[in-house]
Amino acid sequence: MDIHSLTRELFVKNDSKIVMLVADGLGGLPMQAGGKTELETAQTPNLDRLAGVGVQGASIPVFPGIAPGSGPGHLGLFGYDPLTYLIGRGALEATGIGLELREGDVAVRGNYCTLDAEGKISDRRAGRIPSEESGPIADILSKVTIPGVEVIVKPVKEHRFVVLFRGEGLGGQVKDTDPQQVGVPPLAPQAVDAASARTAEVAAEFVSQAQELLKEQPKANGLTLRGFSAKPNIPTYEDVYGLKAAAIAVYPMYRGLARLVGMDIVGQAQTLEEQMEVLKENWDKYDFFFIHFKYTDSTGEDGNFDAKVQRTEELDAILPSIEALGPEVLIVTGDHSTPSFLKSHSWHPVPTLLVSDCCRPDSHQSFGENTAITGGLGQFEAKYLMSLALANAGRLGKFGA
Amino acid sequence: MDIHSLTRELFVKNDSKIVMLVADGLGGLPMQAGGKTELETAQTPNLDRLAGVGVQGASIPVFPGIAPGSGPGHLGLFGYDPLTYLIGRGALEATGIGLELREGDVAVRGNYCTLDAEGKISDRRAGRIPSEESGPIADILSKVTIPGVEVIVKPVKEHRFVVLFRGEGLGGQVKDTDPQQVGVPPLAPQAVDAASARTAEVAAEFVSQAQELLKEQPKANGLTLRGFSAKPNIPTYEDVYGLKAAAIAVYPMYRGLARLVGMDIVGQAQTLEEQMEVLKENWDKYDFFFIHFKYTDSTGEDGNFDAKVQRTEELDAILPSIEALGPEVLIVTGDHSTPSFLKSHSWHPVPTLLVSDCCRPDSHQSFGENTAITGGLGQFEAKYLMSLALANAGRLGKFGA
Repeated sequence: MDIHSLTRELFVKNDSKIVMLVADGLGGLPMQAGGKTELETAQTPNLDRLAGVGVQGASIPVFPGIAPGSGPGHLGLFGYDPLTYLIGRGALEATGIGLELREGDVAVRGNYCTLDAEGKISDRRAGRIPSEESGPIADILSKVTIPGVEVIVKPVKEHRFVVLFRGEGLGGQVKDTDPQQVGVPPLAPQAVDAASARTAEVAAEFVSQAQELLKEQPKANGLTLRGFSAKPNIPTYEDVYGLKAAAIAVYPMYRGLARLVGMDIVGQAQTLEEQMEVLKENWDKYDFFFIHFKYTDSTGEDGNFDAKVQRTEELDAILPSIEALGPEVLIVTGDHSTPSFLKSHSWHPVPTLLVSDCCRPDSHQSFGENTAITGGLGQFEAKYLMSLALANAGRLGKFGA
Repeated sequence: MDIHSLTRELFVKNDSKIVMLVADGLGGLPMQAGGKTELETAQTPNLDRLAGVGVQGASIPVFPGIAPGSGPGHLGLFGYDPLTYLIGRGALEATGIGLELREGDVAVRGNYCTLDAEGKISDRRAGRIPSEESGPIADILSKVTIPGVEVIVKPVKEHRFVVLFRGEGLGGQVKDTDPQQVGVPPLAPQAVDAASARTAEVAAEFVSQAQELLKEQPKANGLTLRGFSAKPNIPTYEDVYGLKAAAIAVYPMYRGLARLVGMDIVGQAQTLEEQMEVLKENWDKYDFFFIHFKYTDSTGEDGNFDAKVQRTEELDAILPSIEALGPEVLIVTGDHSTPSFLKSHSWHPVPTLLVSDCCRPDSHQSFGENTAITGGLGQFEAKYLMSLALANAGRLGKFGA
């Protein structure tokens, strides 16, 4: 029996509000032995005050040692086992650039490549063609027409693009056409199951027309396709938790991830202050709010410790705006750690704070990596955060008599 | 590989004694911010002394956020994954009133209801008929005779009763007859699998005779049947741990749960002191003793913080009687938390103390919710408590070479 077969059976509805504030890449590391992390260095009077009345713990995104991408990181926080709910690369790329996947769509990640006169790959990434040059090529590829299938092509970055096939009877199981080496031609699309036979045909037709359209391109005169994927089959927040949920996120990737679990995307906020306005405007319409803050991750990726400290302080400053609305449950967490020291996502547990009237407070009076380890929530798998949230909101009945 | 395939393979027998003292609903919450829990408020010199030489931790009954009933709460402590071993409502109700389920029995939870002249339900709970009136009705229903099947009917409380069908070829998979609404007649019993076809027939015959026997009743002139369940298929303590186990419990529910895992029910104790006498009398006959103390739960359910504190102190006072017998392993825990603040079972981890000559003591010198969090056992799923108990008793061999 998994988490959701239990929450689905036990959830009850009430008027409580749950706010989950996700500071992307929140967890960090000291830059030198004996030092403090970014979060511990930052002046965070609001988080520290909340730590005094709430309970903290260290969230493990997947399992010890595993540094997740944004997809599994957020799925975990949303209560979906990231090892069970896998999002194909095509679906994730499409989501990341804000393409809405519909039931029956197949999304594919494409790479431009350079083909020699014999049609063999001479450069798998088309000389890492800059985005200014690759962007317009997506428009050229949009001229491909396949009867009965809508073809949507969008640029990503440099040699990357996304193609989305929308039509009847398209399965998502087709092998990559990237041979992973030079000196050979791209592979033909090959269906893995019968339901994907038509997808393979459609993809082959797409490649054929695309080669013709690209033949005059100096570098990007060919392409490979990877990570064919249908819309992931993820049950919604309404279904598994009985929650009407809203996402307040600036970046397309996080809006997309929220949409995959059935959240409504509300507002067009670009700043934290605007996100708070959107929260206030939508307060009466939803039970659950996911608020995403990107910059604790991007500064960590840049290796900019001081900037991450500053972004953390910015985040701290908006907490009173959330508290003023009186949520029954307030959670501050991250989808993974992004230590400036490593300039990348990492596997380190993520400091997580939960405040409610019926949480069992621990003895900590500040919020950070070290206090989280000995906090009342202990170290826990991120996928259990939502059942904790529901329990603290009085939204879960008793299991068994 | 699950817990029991490992313990079954690794257990060894010796002369050690293990005592598990379960204070029902032991965990609590402060009544106000910054306050102490019931356990932290109570004067518990014995528990605190044992905390100094033992090791403590916080037990999670099911998974974070899940508040269990007594069934899953105790199964976890007994080492049976409460998500794998599910006890049907009929079996649990029967167990709760002290009916012993045998192999092949089918237990059903019944509700009296009121039927109108057309046989449609006008009140699903027969006006919540008081126990004084509903009790004798069970005797009336005991007059039902079905060839080849023993029919046992026992009152529970108000409109509730239990019926147990005992005979050959009775499967436990029959749908509820309660239509969950008024204005329609009860549903006919319907088998879910072929093995339960006869059970459905027997149930239909029971209902038919019962309606006739009840037709003059003013309120309880009909009935619905729910939660058909066979005896849960749970391997015994002897089988999975090599332990001869005894239960010393006052209330029928806990005697029943212990019986389901193969414990002998010993004594007729009504008080803690009498339970200690029974323990002493049976000391040489068993390897493992489950002692159940109800009142830390019932006072919590009443929301009576002071009474729960007092009951906790009562429990503390009998610990020297157990220690005097010299158990190799002494465990004090609860099946879940029942904070007076919530007046209900809750999901909060349960303070758990283990004392043995070979436990690794932590630095704590008192026992409570906050110390448990940072204790040497950490936060752990309740289902691992029995393998810890066996190990500390020298009753588990090495896994692998």
